Amino acid sequence: MSPRGPDPDASGREAAGGGEPPRDEDGWIGAIARRFPPGPRVRVGLGHDAAVVAFDGRDVVLKTDTVIDGVDFRLAACGARAAARKALAVTVSDLAAMAALPRACVVSAVLPRGIDFATFDALAAGFEDGARETDCEVVGGDTSVADAPLVLTVAAIGEPGPHGVVTRAGARPGMDLSVTGPLGGSILGRHLTFAPRVREAQVLAALGVPAAMMDLSDGLSTDLPRLAARSGVGAEVDAEALPVHPDVARLADGVAPWRHALDDGEDFELLLAHAPLSAATRAALAAADVTLHRVGRVTAAAGGVTLREGGRTVPLRRGGFDHLRSHPAGPTGG
Amino acid sequence: MSPRGPDPDASGREAAGGGEPPRDEDGWIGAIARRFPPGPRVRVGLGHDAAVVAFDGRDVVLKTDTVIDGVDFRLAACGARAAARKALAVTVSDLAAMAALPRACVVSAVLPRGIDFATFDALAAGFEDGARETDCEVVGGDTSVADAPLVLTVAAIGEPGPHGVVTRAGARPGMDLSVTGPLGGSILGRHLTFAPRVREAQVLAALGVPAAMMDLSDGLSTDLPRLAARSGVGAEVDAEALPVHPDVARLADGVAPWRHALDDGEDFELLLAHAPLSAATRAALAAADVTLHRVGRVTAAAGGVTLREGGRTVPLRRGGFDHLRSHPAGPTGG
Repeated sequence: MSPRGPDPDASGREAAGGGEPPRDEDGWIGAIARRFPPGPRVRVGLGHDAAVVAFDGRDVVLKTDTVIDGVDFRLAACGARAAARKALAVTVSDLAAMAALPRACVVSAVLPRGIDFATFDALAAGFEDGARETDCEVVGGDTSVADAPLVLTVAAIGEPGPHGVVTRAGARPGMDLSVTGPLGGSILGRHLTFAPRVREAQVLAALGVPAAMMDLSDGLSTDLPRLAARSGVGAEVDAEALPVHPDVARLADGVAPWRHALDDGEDFELLLAHAPLSAATRAALAAADVTLHRVGRVTAAAGGVTLREGGRTVPLRRGGFDHLRSHPAGPTGG
Repeated sequence: MSPRGPDPDASGREAAGGGEPPRDEDGWIGAIARRFPPGPRVRVGLGHDAAVVAFDGRDVVLKTDTVIDGVDFRLAACGARAAARKALAVTVSDLAAMAALPRACVVSAVLPRGIDFATFDALAAGFEDGARETDCEVVGGDTSVADAPLVLTVAAIGEPGPHGVVTRAGARPGMDLSVTGPLGGSILGRHLTFAPRVREAQVLAALGVPAAMMDLSDGLSTDLPRLAARSGVGAEVDAEALPVHPDVARLADGVAPWRHALDDGEDFELLLAHAPLSAATRAALAAADVTLHRVGRVTAAAGGVTLREGGRTVPLRRGGFDHLRSHPAGPTGG
């Protein structure tokens, strides 16, 4: 994942058919998934924000995520402490997307050769920050030194909340699509400082709102098709409804603000499909300080994700970040 | 970790005292450990092979480990499949060392830019191999591309075996120190092909043998002081008792074979402290095809680890691999 603006060359991102190797990240991962059929212990497997594993009569939610200097942050700009905090927060965000409660994590750091102790200690401070903020205790780790950029991997376990987990698979035609906050422009700093939506997910789950849910890491235009595919449905996004974060105005790059909201990555808000909200549910969400911004609707056109903009309906182009296709300019590191 | 021969410059590896920054891997990690005091959920925390976290009335054993091209394997020599299998096996080895049963894992791969799909698929095949061999199912993963060598991180969860977990902390003066197999020369290939001692650990635990246990990843001379420190005891190694793997003879480098057994890393045998074995226990171990090689004894000299060799007793020098001090020649990749 990485925050960035729209990609003018983002058309034609479909996975190659026939005998050719797959051409994008989802295609590569899809092609190897056959090697890992879910066994009897797996309640939720590949293709969701996190896995759910049956464990001695309980369910454990398990997730790993990696951030890299030059891809997901710029160490020289943001410092080691912010980088490590981000590494932990992106993993916890995936637990939140499953409506799980973070419990513990282990961290791995590949340190560039010649790193000094002060930088190492700042990494530890960042992990400490993230752990305290998300109640996801660091219980172990691994350190290596290599001729490599800084690589931070966090693996976390969580417990299903009292109302169970939510996956990407429950969206049904006619449902609304909503997000928990304004989108776009996270590259200016929010990609480092965001708070994983653990609390918001619990509030939503307690009210029975989300039928399907995920976190927005690669951008709505990349992530929504994943949710739709996993649910076997289509989706339509309403450009004029997209909540645009004030940061987008500061980008001042001539790109339409709604397109930043659609394509920029690393907002780490929740995207959810849900039945239309009752007045009572709206009131309960407001009382709990959880805001839903409706961005579109679920359709019956399996796999078809469209964009409604200026009176036209067009296929949604994926403008988000793809690790296997893109050489990103990279974030500024805020 | 990395397999290698003895380090002629291995003296004076003690962590720096006073106001200086710590000088080795254990020192750096010890210096940041204060940031992560164990919370109420932590049954076993930092400083052991894996963490044990109380989880909704059950204990989850959690561990992560990372391997890197050029440090822990050479991709061009061993291939992606063997590298990925190793990544999974080194993590499972730590679960084994706790007498835990592997249950599931998540994998993270940092892929060098320009990697082809065949290599990616071979990585998946290697993870599949490791998962099948160790009954540790791959339930999720994360893929990134960077200007970096191949970095593979595996985080696994395990369940305490029916006889509970074993930590590094239970060694007591007068106990024997034993290993589960011959040591040294893993650089010739065993560092890639070893089988984590999951079964052996269960047999030993069922017989009540291990009072303290760990896996040998960085070499006996580096790992034993860690076990001794964690138990608050001393230890003495008997050079003549060290079981030398036949691979050592193939190294033919003029170094005493027992020194390879002492210093080479990545044997991934279990090291355990235990009360002297009864005849009945010996018979039960033999019947289960588990062999213990006695390598020394636990002493009361807290922190003092010595080597008995040629009639002399000298302080044990740490000759194993230290990520923060060494620039290894690196393994040949078998």
